[in-house]
Amino acid sequence: MKKFINDPGEVVAQALAGLAAAHPELRVDPDNQLVIRGDAPVRGKAGIVSGGGSGHEPLHGGFVGPGMLDAACAGEVFTSPVPDAILAATRAADGGAGVLHIVKNYTGDVLNFEMAAELAGDEGIAVETVLVDDDVAVRDSTWTAGRRGTGATLIVEKVTGALAEEGASLKDVAAIGRAVNERSGSFAVALTAATTPAAGRPGFDLPDDEMEVGVGIHGEPGRRRAKIAPAAEIARVMVDAILAAKPAQGRTIVLLNGLGGTPLLELYLLYGEVAALLAERDVEIARNLVGNYVTSLDMAGASLTICHADDEILRLWDAPVRTAGLRWGV
Amino acid sequence: MKKFINDPGEVVAQALAGLAAAHPELRVDPDNQLVIRGDAPVRGKAGIVSGGGSGHEPLHGGFVGPGMLDAACAGEVFTSPVPDAILAATRAADGGAGVLHIVKNYTGDVLNFEMAAELAGDEGIAVETVLVDDDVAVRDSTWTAGRRGTGATLIVEKVTGALAEEGASLKDVAAIGRAVNERSGSFAVALTAATTPAAGRPGFDLPDDEMEVGVGIHGEPGRRRAKIAPAAEIARVMVDAILAAKPAQGRTIVLLNGLGGTPLLELYLLYGEVAALLAERDVEIARNLVGNYVTSLDMAGASLTICHADDEILRLWDAPVRTAGLRWGV
Repeated sequence: MKKFINDPGEVVAQALAGLAAAHPELRVDPDNQLVIRGDAPVRGKAGIVSGGGSGHEPLHGGFVGPGMLDAACAGEVFTSPVPDAILAATRAADGGAGVLHIVKNYTGDVLNFEMAAELAGDEGIAVETVLVDDDVAVRDSTWTAGRRGTGATLIVEKVTGALAEEGASLKDVAAIGRAVNERSGSFAVALTAATTPAAGRPGFDLPDDEMEVGVGIHGEPGRRRAKIAPAAEIARVMVDAILAAKPAQGRTIVLLNGLGGTPLLELYLLYGEVAALLAERDVEIARNLVGNYVTSLDMAGASLTICHADDEILRLWDAPVRTAGLRWGV
Repeated sequence: MKKFINDPGEVVAQALAGLAAAHPELRVDPDNQLVIRGDAPVRGKAGIVSGGGSGHEPLHGGFVGPGMLDAACAGEVFTSPVPDAILAATRAADGGAGVLHIVKNYTGDVLNFEMAAELAGDEGIAVETVLVDDDVAVRDSTWTAGRRGTGATLIVEKVTGALAEEGASLKDVAAIGRAVNERSGSFAVALTAATTPAAGRPGFDLPDDEMEVGVGIHGEPGRRRAKIAPAAEIARVMVDAILAAKPAQGRTIVLLNGLGGTPLLELYLLYGEVAALLAERDVEIARNLVGNYVTSLDMAGASLTICHADDEILRLWDAPVRTAGLRWGV
């Protein structure tokens, strides 16, 4: 298998050890596979916890730090973290003002976060949940009732993290997280399948001249298979799908995200096509982010997320953030 | 071909258009394929120019901005920029205090930067050059007399950029750039070959169970082919090779760099192994950077760069930088 690993069963634990070595400002709880902000819990601040299966790095552990998450739970690759780990993260994040759970809409994650929220409630920790379901490609999917949660998760984590840092209440932080999700749509295209360390071979077959249009971040099927098309045409499919589901309203934050195996050269080229199309449609891009942020291991592919933002969302997007995977203003 | 492109001959130009759309704080000169700091030339500041073949993004265009480069020349994929383009970049960067050329040691780049430096001299622009040749894997290589220039380029660009920003003279900026190069060693391992848009297939054959040990960033052969090994063993090969060529002296900056197709999960795992080995050898890691920074398109692989830094180099490493590919402190 063409991977920098030792034992396939130890990949996540050993990657977390490497993250801890690289970032002494974070704490890693190896037993629960948590990444925790070094100064957590921050007294009086609404805590923010996210998590999910590993293999989507820098999401979520790479987004822990001032201005974003207080703690992230890393499940095994493409596998939800268990309720006990989520509960431990919730405790670590609780500074007395309650904790927000940011949950991508996959059945395992939803169930395990729900259970952890109940357990936390029994301990007197107030929990609110934002369910992210931004992927407009398909209605239901493998492991998902309703739309899948993908790229908008980054925007939800950034915006709620900034508001929590200002001392807003848990209810207000949750409300803006839900607003960001509601205003966001995403659509992904895969050129190759990801290879998990456990399987050692690509998760699905994709002929040399075909792409999966509307793919999920675990390789779930999309809307259709199609012959590989020029970037301009792929951009049009993505933009049309998102704007059909989430019509334009105001200015936007655009995330052009690589799925792990796609070079930045191609991502910028594709971003140029997206920007040109949005200009044609009179959709203003107020902020943008181009790079590999919500990945699917080594999958060659890209996702587009458009968030129709208001002034408050843009203000919080611009607020300082200091994490391993996203940093500005500090 | 599994790429987000339109016409293979237009990839670099269209990617630069995308970069310009994403980063209005930069200027892109499409004719010369340059990325230029928006406020260049900065009056009285030593200008800094780098460049080389495309396909290594975010190097170099992603490192243009306050605290790093004033301009970057993007050649076609894996092809040196022409002297006229380098001259145009030099003019754009010259604020009257002369211009530093940071050149990776490949024959085409060296010749073209030399010619551009001569032409700039004829126009009265003082030019100094730092030749980066940090790759300890092989002495000579395809397209290279002497050692190849790789990961240390990022550190040279960061440190010289910071010193120039403080108003230091061209000679002093060049001197610290040479010191960083002298103190740095790099070593790369490829698990797969990169596919250029022009060729449309992998640049070399690498069997499913083998790796290229000591590979160059264009897929140049390394020291040997070997069976894929555990990450701990690969880390040991890298660390031993670098410390043999560049013995420890003081604290280090460690760059664990992905070659484009390797997920962050694996890079952090590998970084953990490197950190453990350096601790065993009493080499202190004062700063580190983990991610895809000096890439080879979609190559699965990683390089390790160790820079034996002094206090001044560390101070300049920590200075604020605001570019598309590297940002902190602002």
